[in-house]
Amino acid sequence: MINKRLELLRSQMQTRQIDAVIFPSNDPHQSEYVADYWKIRAYFSGFSGSAGTLVVSQKDAALWTDSRYFLQVESQCAGTDVQLHKQTVPHAPEHVAWICNSLKENAKLGIDFRLFSCSQVDFIKEHAASKNIALVDISALVNEVWQDRPSGGNAPIVDHSIDICGESRTSKIETIREELRNESANTYFVSSLDEIAWLFNIRSKDVDFTPLVTGYACIAEDSVVLFADAERIESTLLSELNQHGIEVQPYGDIISFLKQQSSDLTVLTDPTSLNYACFDAISGTVQYKPSLIQHLKSVKNSVEIENAKDGMRKDGIALTRFFIWLEDYLQTQSISEYDLGIKLESFRKEMPLYTGQSFGCIVGYKGNGAIIHYSAPQEGSATIQNEGVLLIDSGAQYENATTDITRTIWLGGTPTDELKRAYTLVLKGYIELERMQFPATVTGMQLDSFSRMHLWKHGLNFGHGTGHGIGAYSMVHEPGQGFASTGTTSRGTSTHKANQLTTIEPGFYKEGAFGIRTENIVVSKVVQKTEYGTFLGFEPITLCYIDTQLLDRSLLTSSEITWLNEYHKKVYTALSEELSVDEQKWLANKCAPTY
Amino acid sequence: MINKRLELLRSQMQTRQIDAVIFPSNDPHQSEYVADYWKIRAYFSGFSGSAGTLVVSQKDAALWTDSRYFLQVESQCAGTDVQLHKQTVPHAPEHVAWICNSLKENAKLGIDFRLFSCSQVDFIKEHAASKNIALVDISALVNEVWQDRPSGGNAPIVDHSIDICGESRTSKIETIREELRNESANTYFVSSLDEIAWLFNIRSKDVDFTPLVTGYACIAEDSVVLFADAERIESTLLSELNQHGIEVQPYGDIISFLKQQSSDLTVLTDPTSLNYACFDAISGTVQYKPSLIQHLKSVKNSVEIENAKDGMRKDGIALTRFFIWLEDYLQTQSISEYDLGIKLESFRKEMPLYTGQSFGCIVGYKGNGAIIHYSAPQEGSATIQNEGVLLIDSGAQYENATTDITRTIWLGGTPTDELKRAYTLVLKGYIELERMQFPATVTGMQLDSFSRMHLWKHGLNFGHGTGHGIGAYSMVHEPGQGFASTGTTSRGTSTHKANQLTTIEPGFYKEGAFGIRTENIVVSKVVQKTEYGTFLGFEPITLCYIDTQLLDRSLLTSSEITWLNEYHKKVYTALSEELSVDEQKWLANKCAPTY
Repeated sequence: MINKRLELLRSQMQTRQIDAVIFPSNDPHQSEYVADYWKIRAYFSGFSGSAGTLVVSQKDAALWTDSRYFLQVESQCAGTDVQLHKQTVPHAPEHVAWICNSLKENAKLGIDFRLFSCSQVDFIKEHAASKNIALVDISALVNEVWQDRPSGGNAPIVDHSIDICGESRTSKIETIREELRNESANTYFVSSLDEIAWLFNIRSKDVDFTPLVTGYACIAEDSVVLFADAERIESTLLSELNQHGIEVQPYGDIISFLKQQSSDLTVLTDPTSLNYACFDAISGTVQYKPSLIQHLKSVKNSVEIENAKDGMRKDGIALTRFFIWLEDYLQTQSISEYDLGIKLESFRKEMPLYTGQSFGCIVGYKGNGAIIHYSAPQEGSATIQNEGVLLIDSGAQYENATTDITRTIWLGGTPTDELKRAYTLVLKGYIELERMQFPATVTGMQLDSFSRMHLWKHGLNFGHGTGHGIGAYSMVHEPGQGFASTGTTSRGTSTHKANQLTTIEPGFYKEGAFGIRTENIVVSKVVQKTEYGTFLGFEPITLCYIDTQLLDRSLLTSSEITWLNEYHKKVYTALSEELSVDEQKWLANKCAPTY
Repeated sequence: MINKRLELLRSQMQTRQIDAVIFPSNDPHQSEYVADYWKIRAYFSGFSGSAGTLVVSQKDAALWTDSRYFLQVESQCAGTDVQLHKQTVPHAPEHVAWICNSLKENAKLGIDFRLFSCSQVDFIKEHAASKNIALVDISALVNEVWQDRPSGGNAPIVDHSIDICGESRTSKIETIREELRNESANTYFVSSLDEIAWLFNIRSKDVDFTPLVTGYACIAEDSVVLFADAERIESTLLSELNQHGIEVQPYGDIISFLKQQSSDLTVLTDPTSLNYACFDAISGTVQYKPSLIQHLKSVKNSVEIENAKDGMRKDGIALTRFFIWLEDYLQTQSISEYDLGIKLESFRKEMPLYTGQSFGCIVGYKGNGAIIHYSAPQEGSATIQNEGVLLIDSGAQYENATTDITRTIWLGGTPTDELKRAYTLVLKGYIELERMQFPATVTGMQLDSFSRMHLWKHGLNFGHGTGHGIGAYSMVHEPGQGFASTGTTSRGTSTHKANQLTTIEPGFYKEGAFGIRTENIVVSKVVQKTEYGTFLGFEPITLCYIDTQLLDRSLLTSSEITWLNEYHKKVYTALSEELSVDEQKWLANKCAPTY
């Protein structure tokens, strides 16, 4: 089937005299998850992983991805022409040099201009220059070949009401306009889907795991245009949008709209989400500025924070019931990792306003817990029994909140000292960072080490960032503040502000043996203002017990024990009133004080 | 006098049709301290501070400096034409826009090409372009006007012997040659004075506080040329240099030498120390690379480390005797900050191999301690009595080591709770960072927070980096590793390696009231290698008691008390054998265990 698709593609390429094409993983909005419509690379390669790039020429069908996916590619691409190229650095554009190298002088290289940022296009052009390789837009090509191509979304576009989001779209638009005046620009151009959703208080189901609407927007002093599928907008919402001065034009009209704008205009936009097709269409001056909306959106208003707390309370109830069920079930039976993920979702589905998972849940038993982006396969995932260690990282979309939580629990038998030590050091790192008080000028990179210091002292470490921002019924991974050990992402370089929601999730992974991660969401707040600065701190809003069976008590200070007991008291108090007497009893036991 | 100098300068400028000149603070080698020969800005402005830029036109004599020096400028430049321009950001080139703005179209702006880096010249050219202002070299101008200009150094250039430096110059040169081969370059060009001193194992007294030789060097596969004052080189050293294949050419010949080199050559060099005159003279290809020598030099060999320990032991003895003297003296008399600095040096002078201070010592009594770069004036500095708090930051050059140490001591009376709390939090920060174990991949920015975390938790902070590399009978502030809260210097962005010498010096400053800083030098070492990385740690080599009178015992953990007692035991053991019985008794009391 894949080879047939490639054959059809190559014949179309020949007709158009295109020597090679590059298919990336993303959509025109640089989204983390993409609508089925944009899963072009998966369509032509058979490989369904989240990261990878396919390059197709008459001779080759070469797929680049990183080590997380090597086995998956081998299995999914078996029997096809697709050859795996192993990336050493995830997301590095190693394929560009490769294809420019293998093409002849004056060849034609096709890319969909909507799927590449300006800096990506510049990078390709640089490599293509020495051989005079021409870069051509193939945005029309895929439709010719992919006959049963899915739609970009067909669910209704609905109002994200003011009592849930806490701020009107007119107020948000006015803030953008103020910024436009400050910058002496005429138009603010938005292409990130989570920013569109936030700005207009609209939601839909266009993208996996994320309630977003495919669209663009242009905000000017006297007009606002939303480019989206008007037929899908609920009629009351549509008239409300119009009342608020927001004109809706077809999604596909964005390019011609941009081209028709006066060349005198200055268009302010965020270069990281702007695609090359839009850039190319803007007739005025493009003025780059880091996203205005990202900064506004990352600071939650009081309604959003209360909703987030409500979401975490519901997650806490669902997880408590799930863990009760699991403990009981494993006494007599076993279950696969994959099925356990489904079972977990069934408990969350019982909660009001649940609309789906916020990401593909990670259920990693024993050694599988050490695979950081593990996704249990439907067929042949590990069988969980009443012994050993289990890592579960999962999250929900509720109509009023997005959640994300990780717990590592012990299922039975006697844990090794090594496991207990690592589990305890991870918890110590969590507590260290959660209780830190720090100047508001401090970046995520300066805070990240606090979550690692206790592991470091034992010669241990973990290979991922310590936390990320989280959306309000939006993306589970919001760009902006967080904790990371490098300055290569915004999580390392951004400072924190009061009223942001951020995860703290240190871990430890021993290959082939076990994975540990403990993750809470915290809300940042101003703790103290002195002549030496404004000092921030965190308050956890996640409500779920932390398994004390894996603790090495000797490694904890009395102040850490106090933290643990107070946290457990808070969890029990918040959840118990919605639990049955038996459930309360079970949770009280899990939340019993540690001495 | 200053106005006369300016008058003479302006008349020479008129003769040469130069409309304005810029005099920076540095020498052609981007040194931290400069030889008297290069104190051009001071000569024409009267202002002797370490940082500042003078711009002179027929109309103006404008001096830019930062807030540390505003009062000093007002006093030193009183009665002259020099006008102070207050910088908000230290070292920012705010004067460039100003002078380009005030000059007419097609004007001529003069700078000494040797005193500006390529990026600084580019920056000026950018600003000068719109008015077509020409940039001209004025390297000959100053000599015409400054008639009694001092020499660039007249002390002998001596051998820094192998038993002190631990590695031969031929071995060091061979390492550079290996790197040249790796980079496929022909010549390595060196212009940093500390790198010249390290590479050739030579020392002199050309620069304040630093035993360096004014020079340049070119290392090629089959030749090494040192550009320096051959007459000043001791004859045995000169013949040794020649034996080692090192040709010495006059310092002033560097430009003509570079111009005569083949244009086929690739010259590898560090852009941060390369000046524009040299860059302009290189006829071959210039290939930029961060200094090779900086990395090699920052890792000390075992001989250098033993010497550093010897230097710190001598500092410890000198400081102990000084503090004994001070305690006794203040019982009946008082002394000015300035005179106390001289007195302190007299104790160091008693130590073998002492050659001078490694920087201008900081003696800050009470509120003066809060002025971070405080330099007590010869006239009118504060009078120290037997009460209150005193901060002393000082260092020595011994022929085998460079030292740097800060202690804050209590002179009598009852310290406030606020002072004791701050002093204790600073010590906790020191201990936290000194005892940290961390992966070798971690940068100074990721470590810096450990020295601040205890202050942060009380709403306090301090406004300088936490530590810097230190040379081996060389610069007291070596570029490279260290601890800083931003990535704007190498101290924030560099990782640490085993066998580096670095200061840890957190502080706290309450304006007008007190300053606290505690500084030790530590040597880094590999503590553990695991599958999660190579983990480094620090060991202090500074040997001087920490005043326990200012401690708030309730803020210290038992583990911190243990650290303090062990440190004091080490100090007493190392120093006591060289002290008299009375001195031993005094020190034993200062080092008595805290409970």
